[in-house]
Amino acid sequence: MVARRSFVRERTGVDLQHVASGSIDPASTRGNVENFIGVAQVPIGLAGPLLIDGEHASGEFYVPLATTEGALVASYNRGMRALHLCGGARTTVVDDHMQRSPVFECADARGARDLRAWVDAHRVQIAQAAQSTTRVGRLEQVTAFVIGSLLYLRMDYATGDAAGQNMVSRATLAACEWIQAQHPDHPAYLLSGNIDTDKKHSQVNMLLTRGKRVVAEAWLTGQALRQVMGVEPRELFHARQVSQAGAFMVGSANNGAHAANGLTALFIATGQDVANVVESHAAVVYNQVLPDGRYYWSITLPSLIVATHGGGTALATQAECLAMLGCIGPGSARKLAEIAAATVLAGEISLASAVLAGDWVTGHERLGRNR
Amino acid sequence: MVARRSFVRERTGVDLQHVASGSIDPASTRGNVENFIGVAQVPIGLAGPLLIDGEHASGEFYVPLATTEGALVASYNRGMRALHLCGGARTTVVDDHMQRSPVFECADARGARDLRAWVDAHRVQIAQAAQSTTRVGRLEQVTAFVIGSLLYLRMDYATGDAAGQNMVSRATLAACEWIQAQHPDHPAYLLSGNIDTDKKHSQVNMLLTRGKRVVAEAWLTGQALRQVMGVEPRELFHARQVSQAGAFMVGSANNGAHAANGLTALFIATGQDVANVVESHAAVVYNQVLPDGRYYWSITLPSLIVATHGGGTALATQAECLAMLGCIGPGSARKLAEIAAATVLAGEISLASAVLAGDWVTGHERLGRNR
Amino acid sequence: MVARRSFVRERTGVDLQHVASGSIDPASTRGNVENFIGVAQVPIGLAGPLLIDGEHASGEFYVPLATTEGALVASYNRGMRALHLCGGARTTVVDDHMQRSPVFECADARGARDLRAWVDAHRVQIAQAAQSTTRVGRLEQVTAFVIGSLLYLRMDYATGDAAGQNMVSRATLAACEWIQAQHPDHPAYLLSGNIDTDKKHSQVNMLLTRGKRVVAEAWLTGQALRQVMGVEPRELFHARQVSQAGAFMVGSANNGAHAANGLTALFIATGQDVANVVESHAAVVYNQVLPDGRYYWSITLPSLIVATHGGGTALATQAECLAMLGCIGPGSARKLAEIAAATVLAGEISLASAVLAGDWVTGHERLGRNR
Amino acid sequence: MVARRSFVRERTGVDLQHVASGSIDPASTRGNVENFIGVAQVPIGLAGPLLIDGEHASGEFYVPLATTEGALVASYNRGMRALHLCGGARTTVVDDHMQRSPVFECADARGARDLRAWVDAHRVQIAQAAQSTTRVGRLEQVTAFVIGSLLYLRMDYATGDAAGQNMVSRATLAACEWIQAQHPDHPAYLLSGNIDTDKKHSQVNMLLTRGKRVVAEAWLTGQALRQVMGVEPRELFHARQVSQAGAFMVGSANNGAHAANGLTALFIATGQDVANVVESHAAVVYNQVLPDGRYYWSITLPSLIVATHGGGTALATQAECLAMLGCIGPGSARKLAEIAAATVLAGEISLASAVLAGDWVTGHERLGRNR
Repeated sequence: MVARRSFVRERTGVDLQHVASGSIDPASTRGNVENFIGVAQVPIGLAGPLLIDGEHASGEFYVPLATTEGALVASYNRGMRALHLCGGARTTVVDDHMQRSPVFECADARGARDLRAWVDAHRVQIAQAAQSTTRVGRLEQVTAFVIGSLLYLRMDYATGDAAGQNMVSRATLAACEWIQAQHPDHPAYLLSGNIDTDKKHSQVNMLLTRGKRVVAEAWLTGQALRQVMGVEPRELFHARQVSQAGAFMVGSANNGAHAANGLTALFIATGQDVANVVESHAAVVYNQVLPDGRYYWSITLPSLIVATHGGGTALATQAECLAMLGCIGPGSARKLAEIAAATVLAGEISLASAVLAGDWVTGHERLGRNR
Repeated sequence: MVARRSFVRERTGVDLQHVASGSIDPASTRGNVENFIGVAQVPIGLAGPLLIDGEHASGEFYVPLATTEGALVASYNRGMRALHLCGGARTTVVDDHMQRSPVFECADARGARDLRAWVDAHRVQIAQAAQSTTRVGRLEQVTAFVIGSLLYLRMDYATGDAAGQNMVSRATLAACEWIQAQHPDHPAYLLSGNIDTDKKHSQVNMLLTRGKRVVAEAWLTGQALRQVMGVEPRELFHARQVSQAGAFMVGSANNGAHAANGLTALFIATGQDVANVVESHAAVVYNQVLPDGRYYWSITLPSLIVATHGGGTALATQAECLAMLGCIGPGSARKLAEIAAATVLAGEISLASAVLAGDWVTGHERLGRNR
Repeated sequence: MVARRSFVRERTGVDLQHVASGSIDPASTRGNVENFIGVAQVPIGLAGPLLIDGEHASGEFYVPLATTEGALVASYNRGMRALHLCGGARTTVVDDHMQRSPVFECADARGARDLRAWVDAHRVQIAQAAQSTTRVGRLEQVTAFVIGSLLYLRMDYATGDAAGQNMVSRATLAACEWIQAQHPDHPAYLLSGNIDTDKKHSQVNMLLTRGKRVVAEAWLTGQALRQVMGVEPRELFHARQVSQAGAFMVGSANNGAHAANGLTALFIATGQDVANVVESHAAVVYNQVLPDGRYYWSITLPSLIVATHGGGTALATQAECLAMLGCIGPGSARKLAEIAAATVLAGEISLASAVLAGDWVTGHERLGRNR
Repeated sequence: MVARRSFVRERTGVDLQHVASGSIDPASTRGNVENFIGVAQVPIGLAGPLLIDGEHASGEFYVPLATTEGALVASYNRGMRALHLCGGARTTVVDDHMQRSPVFECADARGARDLRAWVDAHRVQIAQAAQSTTRVGRLEQVTAFVIGSLLYLRMDYATGDAAGQNMVSRATLAACEWIQAQHPDHPAYLLSGNIDTDKKHSQVNMLLTRGKRVVAEAWLTGQALRQVMGVEPRELFHARQVSQAGAFMVGSANNGAHAANGLTALFIATGQDVANVVESHAAVVYNQVLPDGRYYWSITLPSLIVATHGGGTALATQAECLAMLGCIGPGSARKLAEIAAATVLAGEISLASAVLAGDWVTGHERLGRNR
């Protein structure tokens, strides 16, 4: 590292004083980075208590958010306060699998269709081949899509507490090799046909989930919304119709407000593969005003990718942040997923209200004649 | 910070030893974070030299990539080597504006259409109102969309070296207030109608750009591809057809490989608002095999959001990384945008080749009978 | 035709008795079809009166719907009855242009960007070149998109009462030839770069409109909804949240119910290019329940393509149907657009209510505990 | 009908002379239309012979295309000529099911997830309930999607030779009633949650198919392309890259040319529910230039909805057209699907070539310097 620091000084004239003064042991970064020159120090703010009524996360949590965007922590904090007044966020993991999507090249579409049937008929053996490469991973489902002479497979794996991208790559390579060797046509394949869609938002992940599909829900009282947010439920609901129509027209990945903000901050703090925020930020917000006046607010994250094992989770500062959340050890990935979703919900409530109340503070009527 | 560290210890039982041992001055984080408790230390690897033939970035660059994903730096590095052999990446900024998209609520669609005409007729005054709030921002364009009785405006601003989200919010608030005050109907509005689409990928940003639209191009020789990547151009092009069809079918935000990886690592290192990677990772890859055998590879990032002023750019480690890239001072945001795009291109070349060569190492024919 | 009928009999064994017994003069189909063998006879049902408060269509209309789908006419009819009770549908044409989107191939992205600037600087001459090919067409706007070394232009034209696809092709060919001849680089081009997107639904048409952007709105009373539809406004609004969330998740071209049904039937009856229903069926529904209890229902058709001149509009049965609607002569295309949008709105009200009331007739509670 | 004709004359001043002079028996339209007033007569042109190497359609076909768009029949005809020279189109049906997608409203997301498991565990009984309403329909698969407290089911049915929308509605109603009655919570539901997406294009149908997923493929020789189309394979492939990039950027439902044209014309002629062209026109084109110089051209229609039973298929002219194609009787729906896909492929080849050759006739170089 010293040599590289000199090299950087020589080539760029910059002395990496702060970059080089992290407290973490360079040796500890092996497997996380190559050509190590030091660390980026990203400020962490504390938000909470976040009250969660989850199946994996339950109780109050203090959430470390690593960000450089002023007001972000305060905004999430405010949302957490409103949630707390209303019994917290109920969180549920409804799906959980990571995938790799190889593509086989066949002679024609019939070949692709027939290979699909052959794969179906050999699911046990294919799973064995795949699972021979991993202690944790389990092949749970294979969905197939035919385009022309191509057969794309979407192979879903359970991956335990790891995000699992590398695990599923290895497993899928073994599966593909098995298919290629055993099938009489020995079909050529590519390990990824770009439908997984690794490190990319996509509609298929919105539908079929990459990582975890997690829902956070709250039943907000008018009193809490008025007191903490300065808004009325019916006004929020009115504005909701407007923002939904806009999100639909423009083809947005998320019909809510800003899931990416909270997720990114939590991801940096806890050693996630931060690039996965592009898949993870997709969301469907679904709200109703209930007959008793409460505001039902749900956000569904269809492709939330989080891990408590592997990647950057063992690095010094990141491990401390995971420990703060009690997300250490087996089974903690789903706990982290629930914390993430609850955090996102807090941010939604806060920002959606701010847009509205910001309008209100202008002293003008915010409700058009159309009302 | 000491008090908060105690508080965390008390509530969670975790001593934030490493989180608290960053080298940066807590006071320096004011404006970047609230409830500061320390820093996340993210390992930085060095990639380069990256040879760029840009209009703002020109020559060799050493790129700091903050990541915890093993092999990422090595992979980008390999792509940079191939680029270097072929004259580097040519980079071009073709658009540059940040927006805020308020929505006005009218009595009916005619009211919305008429308000649109009124806004058109008062562009100078609206720009004056908007620009009264900012020294740097300039209102460059207003695009309007009608849904029912709603008029959504997409107000594009030049924002200098800042990303500009806050700048355009202030300016747009002033513009909306002016419209509301001056228009005879005093129409109600929301500051965001969710079509900006802040912190969300969207098709509208793919088309109309949020931040910078930047193209990186290379003309790769067969020799470089063979030598550095172990692939043949015609094989790459064959695989390209497959991955394009897949990306199209699944509604991917990016028909390339993994722009998000390089961007996220660069964003963390250089103090960007990392959540913007969700907008920034969208891309259109367009390739051709040229008659002379070279492989033309372009990637267009339609919504790249980068800054060299504001946000986290002045923090100690982040500023050092920006300095390494020579991205300090007026005009440097476009330079950073070009570096980012060239970095992404390096990563595309490397990963697309690896998928292919990985197949190849299996010793099986990777080209199907269909060929 | 007799010869072809014999030919068909000989080759397929089928005597085209009914196909050959249409009342229209075969000669009249010149320009509409080649290898004419007769006619498809599609049953027409009558719906109405449809009460419209439009700027081009005003008063009561009887709408001919050519369909083979039982219940379709009855359903639209029912919606028209509800509209009539509530003052009719207010209709507004907010945009109106057809486009062709050529693409120029440049040396690199800078070439593409610079060509864009050159095109901007020569707008008057390019418009002259384009308009030299047409008496009616007017080049109104050019939007440009850069991908790599490619410059895609989206050239919007006013096309009078024609749909205008052929008109804009000819005009754009002339424009491209002018650009190619005059620009020093003589850039190559393709007349369509597939972003127009002719005969295809697309997000760009949702945003930027192909054909006419038309809004139909109604303010429905609770009484009318209860009486004609058997539903309560608040139940409709509740269900609306559910169907909106679903449409968003699955990437639907339309967050409403079934615009395609009414449009297709009207298109067949009135001699439209029926294939354009794929562009035309896109829609954004936006609703609110008003404080006075009325249900505000709007549907925005962003890409409605209709004509009253050219295509099949002069054929015998089709011309009669256009005459029924008073859509003959200059300026009648926008009138037809308003009738189409109002018809669609009637169908939305009817089907959305039926889904709900159909649930209701089961005698079970249709409102979940979540309410 | 006479009374209605008088009514129309009285109200609109139009005498429906031609509309009223169809040859079909008004009584025969019962079940197809209400308020019958006559017929729209749509010209039919003959295209062919279309050579098909299918599993259901095999040999030469003469295809009736009902259209008013001049040049359409000629263009498809030309494509069929090229196909004929190259051995015809190979066609394959790879999926076949129609769906209805009810949505259940649960107390919360856990309720939705648990209901999903309950539905899985009661698949046999649910299928029995569904199938009790139909002689033909078979429930083949249920895919479930959770949003907040909502459980959307996508219930896929085999529907024989009918398109099946009504069949699956009845069956799904029975299934939902069974679920509601048997499940301890008696959950409320809506028969459609708008994710089917009936009469709407959607990404989910692109992926999971609505109707039939059909592939048409051809291996075109350079000679045939040159002779019939006036283009070179390598030029087509070059242009293909451009049109693919464009289609991707703009979010098109189809990365090919104009599937809607041929489908609409065939649908009108053969008594299909023409509105289904909006689902049916979606497509993924996938091409390769083979080492031997042939051009592999495939088009995959993921949501082709065709029927040879029910709807308008028994009407006089429509039945004649179906008879011409030999699409009468059990099993003929897949035959029609293959004919439709082959027709579409012919049109793709013809139009894509015309765009290119049209450029060529200008006498200018169509290949940019970038080549």
